[in-house]
Amino acid sequence: MRSEEAFPRLRALGFAEPDAQALAAHFLDAERTGRYGHGLSRIEWLGTLDGIDPGARPRRELSEPGYERWRGDGALGYLVLAAVVEAQLAHPPEPARIVVCSDTFPTGALGYWARQLAEGGLVAALTATSPRRLGHPDGGPKLTGTNPLAIAIPSSDGRPLVVDVSMGRVTYGDVIRGAATDEELVPFGGDRAHKAFALAVGLQLLVDSLAGPDHGAVLLVARPEHDPVPAFRELAQGVRLPGDRGLAL
Amino acid sequence: MRSEEAFPRLRALGFAEPDAQALAAHFLDAERTGRYGHGLSRIEWLGTLDGIDPGARPRRELSEPGYERWRGDGALGYLVLAAVVEAQLAHPPEPARIVVCSDTFPTGALGYWARQLAEGGLVAALTATSPRRLGHPDGGPKLTGTNPLAIAIPSSDGRPLVVDVSMGRVTYGDVIRGAATDEELVPFGGDRAHKAFALAVGLQLLVDSLAGPDHGAVLLVARPEHDPVPAFRELAQGVRLPGDRGLAL
Repeated sequence: MRSEEAFPRLRALGFAEPDAQALAAHFLDAERTGRYGHGLSRIEWLGTLDGIDPGARPRRELSEPGYERWRGDGALGYLVLAAVVEAQLAHPPEPARIVVCSDTFPTGALGYWARQLAEGGLVAALTATSPRRLGHPDGGPKLTGTNPLAIAIPSSDGRPLVVDVSMGRVTYGDVIRGAATDEELVPFGGDRAHKAFALAVGLQLLVDSLAGPDHGAVLLVARPEHDPVPAFRELAQGVRLPGDRGLAL
Repeated sequence: MRSEEAFPRLRALGFAEPDAQALAAHFLDAERTGRYGHGLSRIEWLGTLDGIDPGARPRRELSEPGYERWRGDGALGYLVLAAVVEAQLAHPPEPARIVVCSDTFPTGALGYWARQLAEGGLVAALTATSPRRLGHPDGGPKLTGTNPLAIAIPSSDGRPLVVDVSMGRVTYGDVIRGAATDEELVPFGGDRAHKAFALAVGLQLLVDSLAGPDHGAVLLVARPEHDPVPAFRELAQGVRLPGDRGLAL
């Protein structure tokens, strides 16, 4: 699929113009930054998902100081996170907030959403669950999603630092687009793969305990009290830092 | 050092009885669960640290719905986290809270503190920074601490699930006690070590942006809305899950 086909194809799937725009922006950003597994190949994949309701709207069920709960209500996870990000930027936490999203799938490249918050001046840490595709490195049933953790920190130099790490050796998106096999989708880490597996288990149950049994997401969003990124870049002396080349890890 | 020496040695370092008890409990738990790098070897190491004030008390600077800020004020990080855990259990979040701890070092085995929260019925995710000991897998300056992430989930079966993963291939505690060399203290992951490095960078800057340039800790603590652990254990069909044998990862 070519870039210019993204928006009309999404409109053809039934999405209203602003939703199709939000979705196309995510997929095209993924292509631009080399996250092909989260890119245009997903548009075709969306057409294969059951129970997609292009007209569904995410709903904020609860809003308290320091806490919000959202529900997808049939909307794509991408659109839930787009709405959550927009709401946080419109009403930033004072000084911190946990946002729990239920019924929220698929969520795409989490660093894309976290980066938007950091570009708006907020610190963000975001994780999300997905179908169980990782098992224990020694074998056994598939127990967790690839459960990425994205962390984004604003910077006074205008270049937020964004980290986005999934616990899989390869991404499921790579499997979908044929760049990796299903057998390669194991916890990363080689002889230390039990560590990535443990992180996947912890993030899985963190989300499950707050958002419930359906796929969900948990976001920590906060106003920064300090501005550590410029000094960190200086300390790094030109070492390539995560997110700087825009490539997924 | 033998177990029974822990408490008197800590008293001899000048700690009052309840603080010496809290510290000894942490070190002895680390020994019992195989986390020797966080165990009794640390008592001798404490004696070598500059600027330790055994009489210092951690201070809660700010307490709002969903947010607390604590400061070590010269107290050992262990004792800051002990006070934070006690305060959360005494006044649980409704439903979630971010706790930012400045001037908080050393913090020990984070899973120990997270487990206490889960045993009290609360979900916990805890990270903390420490001296810069990890660099980019390709080389360059040391940029981040080993920056563990601990996640603990309460369970109606009485067995919380606790994950505690540092981003280093070995622990600094192992280096201190001679079980590993300094050269082995690199991001874990082999050919995917850039992923563990990215996580270390993200957690470093998350803590730095909220807690400031001194070592610190950030805790997410929440009441669970769901009880996913029993079903997860059933799904795992006897696969060894993180924390179950009590061994550090």
